[in-house]
Amino acid sequence: MTLKRSKISVIGGGFTGATTAFLLAQKELGDIVLVDIPQSENATKGKALDMAQAGPVQGFDADIIGTSSYEDTKDSDLVIITAGIARKPGMSRDDLVQTNQKVMKSVTSEIVKYSPNTTILVLTNPVDAMTYTVYKESGLPKERVIGQSGVLDTARFRTFVAKELNLSVKDVTGFVLGGHGDDMVPLVRYSFAGGIPLETLIDATRLEEIVDRTRKGGAEIVNLLGNGSAYYAPAASLVEMAEAILKDQKRVLPSIAYLEGEYGMDGIYLGVPTVLGAGGIEKIIELELTEEEKALLNKSAEAVQAVMKVLA
Amino acid sequence: MTLKRSKISVIGGGFTGATTAFLLAQKELGDIVLVDIPQSENATKGKALDMAQAGPVQGFDADIIGTSSYEDTKDSDLVIITAGIARKPGMSRDDLVQTNQKVMKSVTSEIVKYSPNTTILVLTNPVDAMTYTVYKESGLPKERVIGQSGVLDTARFRTFVAKELNLSVKDVTGFVLGGHGDDMVPLVRYSFAGGIPLETLIDATRLEEIVDRTRKGGAEIVNLLGNGSAYYAPAASLVEMAEAILKDQKRVLPSIAYLEGEYGMDGIYLGVPTVLGAGGIEKIIELELTEEEKALLNKSAEAVQAVMKVLA
Amino acid sequence: MTLKRSKISVIGGGFTGATTAFLLAQKELGDIVLVDIPQSENATKGKALDMAQAGPVQGFDADIIGTSSYEDTKDSDLVIITAGIARKPGMSRDDLVQTNQKVMKSVTSEIVKYSPNTTILVLTNPVDAMTYTVYKESGLPKERVIGQSGVLDTARFRTFVAKELNLSVKDVTGFVLGGHGDDMVPLVRYSFAGGIPLETLIDATRLEEIVDRTRKGGAEIVNLLGNGSAYYAPAASLVEMAEAILKDQKRVLPSIAYLEGEYGMDGIYLGVPTVLGAGGIEKIIELELTEEEKALLNKSAEAVQAVMKVLA
Amino acid sequence: MTLKRSKISVIGGGFTGATTAFLLAQKELGDIVLVDIPQSENATKGKALDMAQAGPVQGFDADIIGTSSYEDTKDSDLVIITAGIARKPGMSRDDLVQTNQKVMKSVTSEIVKYSPNTTILVLTNPVDAMTYTVYKESGLPKERVIGQSGVLDTARFRTFVAKELNLSVKDVTGFVLGGHGDDMVPLVRYSFAGGIPLETLIDATRLEEIVDRTRKGGAEIVNLLGNGSAYYAPAASLVEMAEAILKDQKRVLPSIAYLEGEYGMDGIYLGVPTVLGAGGIEKIIELELTEEEKALLNKSAEAVQAVMKVLA
Repeated sequence: MTLKRSKISVIGGGFTGATTAFLLAQKELGDIVLVDIPQSENATKGKALDMAQAGPVQGFDADIIGTSSYEDTKDSDLVIITAGIARKPGMSRDDLVQTNQKVMKSVTSEIVKYSPNTTILVLTNPVDAMTYTVYKESGLPKERVIGQSGVLDTARFRTFVAKELNLSVKDVTGFVLGGHGDDMVPLVRYSFAGGIPLETLIDATRLEEIVDRTRKGGAEIVNLLGNGSAYYAPAASLVEMAEAILKDQKRVLPSIAYLEGEYGMDGIYLGVPTVLGAGGIEKIIELELTEEEKALLNKSAEAVQAVMKVLA
Repeated sequence: MTLKRSKISVIGGGFTGATTAFLLAQKELGDIVLVDIPQSENATKGKALDMAQAGPVQGFDADIIGTSSYEDTKDSDLVIITAGIARKPGMSRDDLVQTNQKVMKSVTSEIVKYSPNTTILVLTNPVDAMTYTVYKESGLPKERVIGQSGVLDTARFRTFVAKELNLSVKDVTGFVLGGHGDDMVPLVRYSFAGGIPLETLIDATRLEEIVDRTRKGGAEIVNLLGNGSAYYAPAASLVEMAEAILKDQKRVLPSIAYLEGEYGMDGIYLGVPTVLGAGGIEKIIELELTEEEKALLNKSAEAVQAVMKVLA
Repeated sequence: MTLKRSKISVIGGGFTGATTAFLLAQKELGDIVLVDIPQSENATKGKALDMAQAGPVQGFDADIIGTSSYEDTKDSDLVIITAGIARKPGMSRDDLVQTNQKVMKSVTSEIVKYSPNTTILVLTNPVDAMTYTVYKESGLPKERVIGQSGVLDTARFRTFVAKELNLSVKDVTGFVLGGHGDDMVPLVRYSFAGGIPLETLIDATRLEEIVDRTRKGGAEIVNLLGNGSAYYAPAASLVEMAEAILKDQKRVLPSIAYLEGEYGMDGIYLGVPTVLGAGGIEKIIELELTEEEKALLNKSAEAVQAVMKVLA
Repeated sequence: MTLKRSKISVIGGGFTGATTAFLLAQKELGDIVLVDIPQSENATKGKALDMAQAGPVQGFDADIIGTSSYEDTKDSDLVIITAGIARKPGMSRDDLVQTNQKVMKSVTSEIVKYSPNTTILVLTNPVDAMTYTVYKESGLPKERVIGQSGVLDTARFRTFVAKELNLSVKDVTGFVLGGHGDDMVPLVRYSFAGGIPLETLIDATRLEEIVDRTRKGGAEIVNLLGNGSAYYAPAASLVEMAEAILKDQKRVLPSIAYLEGEYGMDGIYLGVPTVLGAGGIEKIIELELTEEEKALLNKSAEAVQAVMKVLA
């Protein structure tokens, strides 16, 4: 019987990575290694130290270190990748894909070098293609390489709905399939307030507006911030998935999962409902879709495949 | 019997202000209004929206809005001031003081215009003089205008000690009097691990090194970050004080309090042990000091007074 | 601006009342007054003291007192009634109803004497008729007198389903209407795992078995315990409703609410979906029911009316 | 990398055992096995089921089962023993000791049969002698067999002091050595409010009264309850120690530890300050005692030895 704290490495020490590290520590999910490039090593150390100093006040025990050396990630139980660049004005989509693909390959080879049996969560965009890249590069079983998008998309949807109806966010649920953002396939018929179908509580036009706002939820924040993108809700979404895995909770959460036949798809990472536990994606839940939903999901898959073609 | 959620306004939407808002929301301490200048209004709205979208995932219900209009702060139960500038290279201390004094005066007059009976927590540096400025400008009773420094200083001290001894931060306590940072007066004889005096657990030289590191704790992070200053631990410290007040917890926490005779001081804001509850600073606890400690406290008070002389 | 801790009185210091008091204190929802009859005053004081002594270890600040004097409940923000007897072997249903009706009348008149504007949650069985009794006796507006049954019934249902599917209880929801236990009207079409209708995850026969086990969930525990009835889950259910009200969360929770036209019923307390906030029941949500569901709800209402006829 | 939930067995399904199980589940510290004798098996199952049904509402995922078969405890990471009888009127102390010794031997042999490398926490009274019995019977290393008394004694002390001074329990600490209850050796010079020695905040006479009340804290509750003894604070105390071990927190907590030379004692279990982590008692902290304190500790040790002589 050897008890030990879990070890979680977060790759990328920007706002999302740092916030993810902090939220993990708050929940005492394990000790945290925050990794960034050598040029940012001091800044990463500074953030880690600042977070650690919140521990006595917030009441959590967690070692949090900042580093640029992957050796420090050795034997991680879970690795979360937030590294990569955001699309800049004038940058083509293909440039973004290829740049981040290089980043994914590089960080993945370092990760598995020191933690050959770990589980990896990916946030970097375009997240479907990047999760695929990490999967291929890592050599890990498919259930251990998982992308995040649906938890965030539904969190945004739930926030908008709760505000619209003046209800607690605790009682509003949402449901999406497919790709992230523009390519998401919302299933409003599986979205509820206190178990009551939203379609009976919000009229169709208004509900469509909320879905549309959700689809563009990332861009809305980018536009407001003027500089940078959302990080609180993305970090919280990663942490919910991480907690499900680290505590073996068997949560039913949307994940970007590798499909081999499910939903009629093969060899592609796409957002689907899954069961997350100690085994990573322990199950992909298949739903009966309407013809319209199938068409939307196919379109979403095509968009992902178009990005995957750009991969080197 | 009218139940209602508390309302908390955070002035200054930078990293510290935003993190403070988020930590308040996580604890469901009330609804949050994050205020910044008109030029930053969109960015502030973006941060607030991003935070709100973490609510469904983190499980908190709190309205969080970003604004540049003080009208939105109307009837705040608590206001936390994080606004102001940080000292820049080449800027004289006096310039810093006078610039932030103007900011304090301006935000305070707006705060009390809409919340004439509120309680105010001040973080802006130099915090002793800035808390004094807010006190004078607000017309609020002294127990309702409170500065933060000791919670953060002791949090840093506790982190260093816990690491040194490989113990839980939950069981390590620290104790400081006087000004913030360089001017703090550490009382190591009142600092413990599990109730055991640190002086019996760590040798004197090493303990002095830890005290010295604590004194320079803010600068250490500034140097590591390269750009900007600490915000996780400062925000957590503000939130611990806020929680004590909003939940009437009667916490024994170090505050920057207005002294009128206590510790032989008069008409000065200085760090002392206090009881924080619904009434703000409900009590200042006076300790017997050794001659050496008295001398250090006097020196600390002189440093604060030197800054106050610069006030317009 | 006067901040203060909420005050919550729990009437009945048996297992359910005591556990309710403890769970309220753990969440720091307010100060607690646990009330029982004079013969049990010392035992009630003993339980309150024991709970309070858990505070330093569990990290909560709450005054918890045991008393037999209603004067101590003065100005309660919320009162929770768990008092009354359980049906004993050989006791007729009518005897149970009339005995508990007397208890309700007596405690209610004491409650409103000291807290004329409070909100009351009722757990005592038969809960529909007892909530009605408290409503009539109290003179409080209908939205401030609320019975608990559906939160507990769905909690049991969710537990069984989560176990059946090996999923997190966090992602399983249930939905009931009507009376408590035997008379509950389960709406499995509004019950989900991660948003996915249970009907697609569990076959009809097995689902009916789970519904039936839920219906008899109270009796199952009574039979196992041999002596006494469930109290952990009932207390947790009361506390969830209490938190929704005290923190104005606008939760969508099933409550026993006074119907005046809703669902075609009039002048009867019956379980329906509601929005709970600072105003008590802030809204009753009306759903379209199928003919079959309508018939079941009518039958449930008739069962409640049969009990109400026994009321003196 | 194999993540899994911890497994915790609680021996004894009475009020303390059941409450311990519930508090462990609330914190999601692992899956729980509640064990009692075959005659109580159904009742134990009933309590476990009731607790599990609180999970969806309180938001925790934990399997909780009731059983009388030790096979179900297989591979427990931690075992907590609350079994045994309480002293009844007319029962001699020696009878109590010998009866509970038999219980300890019996349960310990079953525990280690299925979990040969576990860690055991003991609550059963007289706790010093019972922990010794479990140690001897188990064959486990001394650091893995730990008794509880000081966490509870200090929790009671802290509660009384916080009430006396009207301060948060979060900021009051206490410190005891030696045996439980009557035989405890309070070190008030190591007891603080916000780091300030209690001796400077409460006059000596009043402080002695509080110490005395603490010493008799168990009896006070027994007398109030009339039937039975405290269980909320004892359970919370066990859970704090369990959490320290399961999460490897390196907490500084008083434990009943096996002394081999420390404090001049040998071959005896006695209350001393310890560091609790994944290794069980990872360290015994030795303090310089005054002559008076040494004398009290010796007297306390003699009382424990007198009980140990009764052991068969």
